[in-house]
Amino acid sequence: MKLLQDKIINEGQVLSGDVLKVDGFLNQQLDMDLYAKMSQEISAHFSAKNVTKILTVEASGIALAATVALAMHNLPVIFAKKHSTSNRDADFYCTPIFSFTHNKSYNVTIAKRFLTKDDRILIVDDFLARGEAVRGLINLVSQAGATTAGVAIAVEKGYQGGGDQLRAEGIDLYSLAIVDKMDENAITFRP
Amino acid sequence: MKLLQDKIINEGQVLSGDVLKVDGFLNQQLDMDLYAKMSQEISAHFSAKNVTKILTVEASGIALAATVALAMHNLPVIFAKKHSTSNRDADFYCTPIFSFTHNKSYNVTIAKRFLTKDDRILIVDDFLARGEAVRGLINLVSQAGATTAGVAIAVEKGYQGGGDQLRAEGIDLYSLAIVDKMDENAITFRP
Repeated sequence: MKLLQDKIINEGQVLSGDVLKVDGFLNQQLDMDLYAKMSQEISAHFSAKNVTKILTVEASGIALAATVALAMHNLPVIFAKKHSTSNRDADFYCTPIFSFTHNKSYNVTIAKRFLTKDDRILIVDDFLARGEAVRGLINLVSQAGATTAGVAIAVEKGYQGGGDQLRAEGIDLYSLAIVDKMDENAITFRP
Repeated sequence: MKLLQDKIINEGQVLSGDVLKVDGFLNQQLDMDLYAKMSQEISAHFSAKNVTKILTVEASGIALAATVALAMHNLPVIFAKKHSTSNRDADFYCTPIFSFTHNKSYNVTIAKRFLTKDDRILIVDDFLARGEAVRGLINLVSQAGATTAGVAIAVEKGYQGGGDQLRAEGIDLYSLAIVDKMDENAITFRP
């Protein structure tokens, strides 16, 4: 998606430690014109997939999940939680997800009543690198006997390989911008 | 807002420990028809306030902040973060917020470049009880020399007094449903 690629080129920053900093428009501060257009694009790609629910994991995927849901005729959104709260259901699915940003593993959970075997789930997240978060969410969907209809991502770090591995396994993974190479001087997108 | 009150009556649950469980439509699973209508209502209330940005705190306020932003002609959303990450700006505003749900205090932060003295901020969150989160966010706005144009909340626990205290201080606080009393048998809303 050219608009997102242009934003990344013009406003993104490549920092040491393989960090692509896009918090001026994609996370922390959200450019909602961009979010509206990204959501239309994702909605168009998955329109024939009979999606019943959007699934993401807190926190930074929630905004895109919500705006994609509005673009797809107000589909329900569910999100997996990283932190146990006092009012959590007793019956939940659980999977570990390793976060390279925070350098630790989380158990993420979702109440069983929100995922049924008839659900066709579109997984949405802002970033995909090694694919740990998406694999965790696919695992939750499988535990419920539901179907992963597809995965929609704003920015994929293509050179880390997680996305291509998911595609090789037959997942319909649609990323709006795939970074194939980046350093302080240049960012190269997959055509 | 009658639609939200009806949802709370029909699908909400009052649990011990003063917990109003609404995770089937307001958090964890989000009813996006409801979110779209709540956002229109909030947008209408604050339309004359010249709001420049929507501010919330991760995680559960993000969805409502994003949908309100779309309803208000794609205003930018910014959110305060609870967790330090490796790519955080060196220059940030910080305030402690005590969470009764998690029974601990968080330092929440926002990069200074996202809040300027010319900003007129609409604070959005899903819940307000004692008002700790909103006070923390107002504090961040003040630190930047910006203006709090108003506060929009989905569900306020009116009987805990945090909301009325903010109103007494002159804050334009607009809650879509104010619970004045609740127990296992009944939930009473403020007219």
